[in-house]
Amino acid sequence: VASLNRSAGGSQNRVPHTGQTRYDDKVTKIPAAAVTYEDADLIAALAAQGPVRLKLTLTPQTLPDVESYNVVADLPGSEKPDEVVIVSGHLDSWDLGTGALDDGVGVASAMQVANLFKQLKLKPKRTLRVIAWMNEENGFRGPVTYVETHAKELDKHFAAIELDLGAGHPLGFISGGKPELENILTPVNEVLRSSGAGLSRNEPQPVGSDITVLGAKGVPTFEPWVDQRTYFNYHHTPADTLDKVNPRELQENAAVMSVLAYALTNLSGPLPR
Amino acid sequence: VASLNRSAGGSQNRVPHTGQTRYDDKVTKIPAAAVTYEDADLIAALAAQGPVRLKLTLTPQTLPDVESYNVVADLPGSEKPDEVVIVSGHLDSWDLGTGALDDGVGVASAMQVANLFKQLKLKPKRTLRVIAWMNEENGFRGPVTYVETHAKELDKHFAAIELDLGAGHPLGFISGGKPELENILTPVNEVLRSSGAGLSRNEPQPVGSDITVLGAKGVPTFEPWVDQRTYFNYHHTPADTLDKVNPRELQENAAVMSVLAYALTNLSGPLPR
Repeated sequence: VASLNRSAGGSQNRVPHTGQTRYDDKVTKIPAAAVTYEDADLIAALAAQGPVRLKLTLTPQTLPDVESYNVVADLPGSEKPDEVVIVSGHLDSWDLGTGALDDGVGVASAMQVANLFKQLKLKPKRTLRVIAWMNEENGFRGPVTYVETHAKELDKHFAAIELDLGAGHPLGFISGGKPELENILTPVNEVLRSSGAGLSRNEPQPVGSDITVLGAKGVPTFEPWVDQRTYFNYHHTPADTLDKVNPRELQENAAVMSVLAYALTNLSGPLPR
Repeated sequence: VASLNRSAGGSQNRVPHTGQTRYDDKVTKIPAAAVTYEDADLIAALAAQGPVRLKLTLTPQTLPDVESYNVVADLPGSEKPDEVVIVSGHLDSWDLGTGALDDGVGVASAMQVANLFKQLKLKPKRTLRVIAWMNEENGFRGPVTYVETHAKELDKHFAAIELDLGAGHPLGFISGGKPELENILTPVNEVLRSSGAGLSRNEPQPVGSDITVLGAKGVPTFEPWVDQRTYFNYHHTPADTLDKVNPRELQENAAVMSVLAYALTNLSGPLPR
């Protein structure tokens, strides 16, 4: 008749950690809710003693769609302006928090890439495209629409980067796609090593969040390899506020994104897809 | 028109830390509320930019008194049964939490003192009195009534102990009263040293919480000297639940209370008052 989920978040302040519920098309939808780990422990202790009856008062509702937009800005490439490297985060946030970590830090880091290119007078050979994606939280509506709109240019999308796991200290970057991406980008590791971000690893599946939609179309995807120890203490809760962002570590993530974007916009050869 | 207080608790999960509001008799009462540190930071940032207007929806109310009781149990003394050493915690809790730390651990520790005396077949010369005080949170109604009821026997109240600061690792004990209490109880430090609880210090004012009412009448007061680092992360919040109690550290607090109670029930001389 209903489904309860023990919160997976790290909060010890009786704060539920919530997320999406998905249903198989063939089953009837039932009420679903997250309970704090404290209350889950209580329910488990009571259930061990006998039947437990719970009354659920669930208030979520799906409102009608409203028009909204991806925010896109280009720094045109000097040699191959039709080839695009995306740096991105998402503009929307989970309803309970202000979205400082999820994903204000992603948008801020992506904007900082273009800002650093300007400050340092770096001229990318390919176009650097900063994107603040719309509606990541509720079904990737922003990137899905982007891929539809840019269907004919996707083979010119050289790579996409997104930060959407908070702004903890980055250990390096993760590539999503062909394993050969690792060797090609070894110089990025070298540049970042002195800041403690010199590692990388490869996943066969697309990485990032919104950009997995591009990854599914063959675009190589990248994300900073973030220390997530405290991210799920705040993620999707009212406590996702600006005070949780360590300015130094946010700068480090912007640096990882910038070095990676600089390499990708200026790389000579093609990337394996 | 109203008073807002930045929460003093250590929670980083946007949980307000609340407590009592007291008014000078001469002033008109105004609405008072606690805001989370996150929201206090936001209000401060906005206030720095210009006037800030807040709408408060405050729901607290004071309900009529109902009858309730201190819970008292005696282990009679073998030589001076009319002299009493109290071990105690309080039975009520702040409305938001279950009161595991505030003050279930105090009641549990006090009960464990009598339990250990029985298990170890210790015969106290003075009477060991276990008390679960009622209504600590809202004005010490339990201990105030106790002192009224036992007004003629207070000079026979040899000492009182209470734990009401959570059950973090105890460093030793604190005495509230004459500084001479320290030297008299040095053997207690020796016994507890190997468990890391060998320290003590003296306060001129009564210590504990409910038992300060007895202390004001001259009764020497004692409390475990508790590591409070995490106490105010949970105190007076919905997260004051059993999972926050470290069983080992609860045992350590019961041990401090027990060794102290054993010394006080069997001490030869009088205590300075």
